[in-house]
Amino acid sequence: MSRSRTDTDGLVIGLDAGGTSTRAVLLTRSGDCLGYGGSGSGNPTSAGEELAGASVVDAVQRALAAAGRDVGEVSGIVAAMAGHGARGGAVRWLEDALSQAGYRGELEFESDLLALYFSGTASPGGYAIVSGTGAAAIRVEDGELSGTVDGLGWLLGDRGSGFWIGHHVALAAVEDLDGRGPATALTAAVLEALDVVPGDVLGYGRPASLEALIRTVYRLRPVELSRLAPLAFAAAEEDAQAQGILTRAGELLAASFAAIHRGPGPLVTGGSVLAQPGLLADAFTAGVEAVSPGVERIPVADGVVGAGHLALRHAGAEPDAGGHAALTVSIAAARAGRGTSAP
Amino acid sequence: MSRSRTDTDGLVIGLDAGGTSTRAVLLTRSGDCLGYGGSGSGNPTSAGEELAGASVVDAVQRALAAAGRDVGEVSGIVAAMAGHGARGGAVRWLEDALSQAGYRGELEFESDLLALYFSGTASPGGYAIVSGTGAAAIRVEDGELSGTVDGLGWLLGDRGSGFWIGHHVALAAVEDLDGRGPATALTAAVLEALDVVPGDVLGYGRPASLEALIRTVYRLRPVELSRLAPLAFAAAEEDAQAQGILTRAGELLAASFAAIHRGPGPLVTGGSVLAQPGLLADAFTAGVEAVSPGVERIPVADGVVGAGHLALRHAGAEPDAGGHAALTVSIAAARAGRGTSAP
Repeated sequence: MSRSRTDTDGLVIGLDAGGTSTRAVLLTRSGDCLGYGGSGSGNPTSAGEELAGASVVDAVQRALAAAGRDVGEVSGIVAAMAGHGARGGAVRWLEDALSQAGYRGELEFESDLLALYFSGTASPGGYAIVSGTGAAAIRVEDGELSGTVDGLGWLLGDRGSGFWIGHHVALAAVEDLDGRGPATALTAAVLEALDVVPGDVLGYGRPASLEALIRTVYRLRPVELSRLAPLAFAAAEEDAQAQGILTRAGELLAASFAAIHRGPGPLVTGGSVLAQPGLLADAFTAGVEAVSPGVERIPVADGVVGAGHLALRHAGAEPDAGGHAALTVSIAAARAGRGTSAP
Repeated sequence: MSRSRTDTDGLVIGLDAGGTSTRAVLLTRSGDCLGYGGSGSGNPTSAGEELAGASVVDAVQRALAAAGRDVGEVSGIVAAMAGHGARGGAVRWLEDALSQAGYRGELEFESDLLALYFSGTASPGGYAIVSGTGAAAIRVEDGELSGTVDGLGWLLGDRGSGFWIGHHVALAAVEDLDGRGPATALTAAVLEALDVVPGDVLGYGRPASLEALIRTVYRLRPVELSRLAPLAFAAAEEDAQAQGILTRAGELLAASFAAIHRGPGPLVTGGSVLAQPGLLADAFTAGVEAVSPGVERIPVADGVVGAGHLALRHAGAEPDAGGHAALTVSIAAARAGRGTSAP
C-alpha cells in the first residue's frame, strides 16, 4: 500500500474501530461529513483479524455508499483503535483488508482514547477517561497523548470497568454461597444470569449451587464476567453489596483520573459504565471534584468525531474550536441520515 | 476394573496425588509402612491425564519395589486428589492407568484436604487449612469432610494463596509503574524475576518497562503468577507494600478458618505459604486465636500419612490415635529409606 500523498484535495475517513462496533465517517477537508457507516467489531483481539478487517471495510463502504462516492476519492484514513502494537507492525490485517477493497491512500493509526478525547473537545490539553469492558484514563498535551493510566487489562487493571464490576458481582455471589461474605441479592441474580443448574453435591460440604457456579464461571473467558456488571446496577436500590461495588468502582475511576491529572483541562468521559447515573457516577464525580474542582465534564458516546478530527489533522486541516463544533454537528446529521450527499 | 473386595488380607496403598508431586505408601492392614514411592505431578489439570496417570503408576511401582512386593498383592488403593468431579466419573484416566499397570483391586477417591487433615491427627473432628498455589479450609466431623470454604480457584477465590500473593505482587509493581501506587522494591524484583526486557515505547505515555511487563504477564497462564509470591517474602523486611500483602494474606486465610469454624478441634495446616514464619503467619495466628483461643495447631508437610490413614479406613482397619502415631512414624521411616522391607 502506498503511503505517499498523491491527492491533497482527496476526501478523508475517520475510523473508530471498537470491540463491539465500528464507525466510519467520510469527510471533506473543510470538515463536512458526507457519509457515515457503522458495522460490527473492528477489534482483531475480540473478533479475529479476518472479521475485524471485514468490519472496517464494511463501515468504510457504507460511508462511501451513503455519499455516493468511490474509494478512489479517499486519500487518507485514520484508524483509531485500542491495543498495544498498533504502531508496532501488527496492523497488516487492516492494511491488507483496505488494500483488497481498492484503497490506495494513506493509512495512519491513532489511540482510540485520543479519538474519544477529540470527540468531546478541540482543546489541545485535557483528559479523557473511559469505562466500558475495560477502563483507562489519558492526559492530552499539545494535542498529543502524553500519559496513560490503567487500561492494563482484566488481570492487571481495568479498575472500575465493566469487567471489574462483573468480577466483583461474581465474587459477592461466590462468597455469599461459600459462607465468607454477607447474603446478597446478587447471588440469585448471578445464578439466573449464567443459567446455573445445580447438579449433584460432591460431598465436599459445599452448596450444589456453588459447585455449579464455579464450573460455569471457569468455562467463560474471564472478560465475559463483564456480562454481570448490569446486575450491580439493577440491584443498587436495595442491595448493600451492589452499592459497595458501584461506589468502589467510581472511586477507582476517580483515582485513575487523579493519577493522570497535572493541571487544568476538560475531562471527556466515555463508555457504558460511566454513562449510567447513580452511585458509581456520584462517587466518580466526588473524586474528580476533589482533584479538579469545577472541571468541565464532556460525556461522549464514542470516538468517531475524534477519529474524524484526527483524520483532518493528518490531512493538514485540523479544526479549531469552531470547526470542531461544526464537525460534531455535521457527523451527527450524517449519522441520523440527514447528511447532505454533496456535491 | 473390579470394585469387589476379593482379598481381605491384601496390602493397601495410600496415594497423595498433588500438582507438583505424588506420593504413595504401601501399608499392611495393621499400619506398617512397607514401602514409599515419590514421583511427579499427579494432577490431571496441571499435568494432563496421561502424565498424571504415569506419575501415579510410577509412585505406586516405587513403593512396591521398595518393599519387594507385587501389584497383585494390593487389594485397595485410596487416591487423595484435589479437584471437583473426583467422584463424578472423570477419573477414568486413573482407573485406566492403574489397570494397565496390572492393578485389579479396589480404587477409592478422597479429598486431598481430608488426607491433609488425617496427616496431622486421628481426631474425628477438627479443621484443616492449606495455602500453596491455591488455598482452602475444611471442617471434619465424625471423620468425614463436612464443610469447605474457598478452594475456588484463582479467578473466584484462593484468597491468601501463593497465587493471590503473586498476583498482588504483580499488581503492586504495575501500579507503581503506572503512577497509581506507591514506589515499591517489588517492582524491580518482578521485572527481574520475569526477565522483562523493555522495548520501544509506543507513544501512549507509559514507561517502556510497564508495556513490556504487561505483555510478559499476559503470556503466562494466570496461576503462574504464584511464581512471584516468594518476592513478597524476600522483600518483607524493608518494603511496606510487601508487608501489606503478606499481612492481608494471613488475614484472609484466618477469615477462611473463621468461616468454617463451628467448635473445638485441632487445626492442621499445610502448604508452602503457611509454612513460612513472619508477617503472614503472625497475622494468621492472630486471626485464628481470635476465633478459637488456644487451638491446637498441627503443621504437616503433605497428605501422604492421611492418604494411608484413609486407605486403612476403607480396608476396615482405621487407626486410633495410637495407631495413627505409629503409622506416622512408620511412614517417616520408609520415606527416609529406613523402612523394613518385610518378607
